[in-house]
Amino acid sequence: MAVPRIGIGMDSSITPLRHGGLSLVQTTDFFYPLVEDPYMQGKIACANVLSDLYSEGVTECDNMLMLLGVSTKMTEKERDVVIPLMMRGFRDCALEAGCDVTGGQTVLNPWCTIGGVATTVCQPNEFILPESAEVGDVLVLTKPLGTQVAVNAHQWLDQPERWEKIKHSVTEELVLKGYERAMDSMVRLNRTAAMLMHKYNAHGATDVTGFGVLGHAANLAKNQKAEVSFVIHNLPVIAKMASIAKACGNIFKLLQGYSAETSGGLLICLPRDSAAPFCKEIEKLEGRAAWIVGIVEKGDRTARIIERPRVIEIPAIEKEGQLW
Amino acid sequence: MAVPRIGIGMDSSITPLRHGGLSLVQTTDFFYPLVEDPYMQGKIACANVLSDLYSEGVTECDNMLMLLGVSTKMTEKERDVVIPLMMRGFRDCALEAGCDVTGGQTVLNPWCTIGGVATTVCQPNEFILPESAEVGDVLVLTKPLGTQVAVNAHQWLDQPERWEKIKHSVTEELVLKGYERAMDSMVRLNRTAAMLMHKYNAHGATDVTGFGVLGHAANLAKNQKAEVSFVIHNLPVIAKMASIAKACGNIFKLLQGYSAETSGGLLICLPRDSAAPFCKEIEKLEGRAAWIVGIVEKGDRTARIIERPRVIEIPAIEKEGQLW
Repeated sequence: MAVPRIGIGMDSSITPLRHGGLSLVQTTDFFYPLVEDPYMQGKIACANVLSDLYSEGVTECDNMLMLLGVSTKMTEKERDVVIPLMMRGFRDCALEAGCDVTGGQTVLNPWCTIGGVATTVCQPNEFILPESAEVGDVLVLTKPLGTQVAVNAHQWLDQPERWEKIKHSVTEELVLKGYERAMDSMVRLNRTAAMLMHKYNAHGATDVTGFGVLGHAANLAKNQKAEVSFVIHNLPVIAKMASIAKACGNIFKLLQGYSAETSGGLLICLPRDSAAPFCKEIEKLEGRAAWIVGIVEKGDRTARIIERPRVIEIPAIEKEGQLW
Repeated sequence: MAVPRIGIGMDSSITPLRHGGLSLVQTTDFFYPLVEDPYMQGKIACANVLSDLYSEGVTECDNMLMLLGVSTKMTEKERDVVIPLMMRGFRDCALEAGCDVTGGQTVLNPWCTIGGVATTVCQPNEFILPESAEVGDVLVLTKPLGTQVAVNAHQWLDQPERWEKIKHSVTEELVLKGYERAMDSMVRLNRTAAMLMHKYNAHGATDVTGFGVLGHAANLAKNQKAEVSFVIHNLPVIAKMASIAKACGNIFKLLQGYSAETSGGLLICLPRDSAAPFCKEIEKLEGRAAWIVGIVEKGDRTARIIERPRVIEIPAIEKEGQLW
């Protein structure tokens, strides 16, 4: 997520150019590794950067730069194994998105960092400003919540003291399945969703990352032209993550909507009649569900989750490409 | 300096766009603070990022993003003072260059980092590829060398053991003057030089940063279409930095051309007859000299410094705006 945001963009900056009605749409993001597999970490970082373009309905990334911090604490051998894998993951994800990594910057840093800069030059009809929600619209979410809980629970498998706290709510197998489900979600591009935003006349979107689904819903609500508010009724959550979160004494605030996500889904405002066909088509194209999670009401540009939201448990993916 | 470089750019990536013959020119750079004054550090970081655009003859930056790492080791009070100053310096420098900072990314990191992403969208006549040097061309350098030595010597004023080594070659006053001269140089934009590259039909350029003047000259030579080599005869060096470098046992390799520079000058290939008027005009416009430092010969795309280069001692700037 790009901060501070200035100008007319939200997740990306949108800058009018000197040339024929074109705009520069741009975003940057870097963070610290959160999964063990360097290749997957590279993919996640790239998908996460691109997501800021996709949330504005942009489907083409014209250029990607990579930002890399190589940890000073790695041995030379660790570096030689880990860094090329992370770079390859990043590059493979960019290629999947149809863009090249043409440069970047690498530094030595105490902590390992990975991220990038995604840029595209657009005609006005190529992006959708996140500001046109209308009363009666429906909110759709394209990826399940709970990635942070899943990543943490997975780390706790090796930390007996932490594991002690949650072992009565979950099995090791379910933690592993949740972790796999989170990885599947974090490496997945929101590009199809961005394409379908155009087809189904989306009124705006944001991507769910560090502030959690409610934090980003609130940002999106604040950015609307009309006097609307967002009400979230349903929380699709990776299976078992809600009970793990509960067992930890609610440090994640998952069901309150504030658990951080990495490379999360798009939260999209769609005309009421478009929402179901949108979800159906994304599932058909990608083998992954999207969910109607809320509605747009008349209001003061705020967002809330109802008192007892329905938690939809999203199970593991049993087999490559199989629907669930 | 942006690495790795892919595509037709050198200091910046140059990517053809889908729209009417336009190209995306882009670079990113971030590093660790090297001067004490946070405001000046912000300016230096911004000037350093922009320099990669200017070295390709680009004079307009369409968008700037800021990359910031806030040190976890700073107290809250230190952060509240230092970070806003650094951001303001960065932004003021961008404004001076005629562009806005429209976004970026801020993270917590053990080491403080500052940098940015500079992007522009260009018509073909707006950039100059660094590849058309011809035999008989002249090499011009637009800023003096020795910034790293100056910054280090300044730090050593507070380190008796280090100071002991150099105190017979320099006075405290001259170290302070050298530091001021280095700051003046590092915050200065290479934008006027980029504009004059067009006026005087430059055949290509690069900016002198981490690899030193010879390292970057070698990179530029390697990138030429014609069979040419670069020979450097003159080294304009901030006054006293050569003797400090010598007193330290040559750890900097300053006169060998390998001392790192931050936000260094452009090294430009100019037709022989253009070099003197170029230098004269930049001095007139900016109150700062540029120097003819070498020539382009027939060769195998390498660069060298002659055995006994002439070291030009560049004195401090006595008064704002005064020529020296």
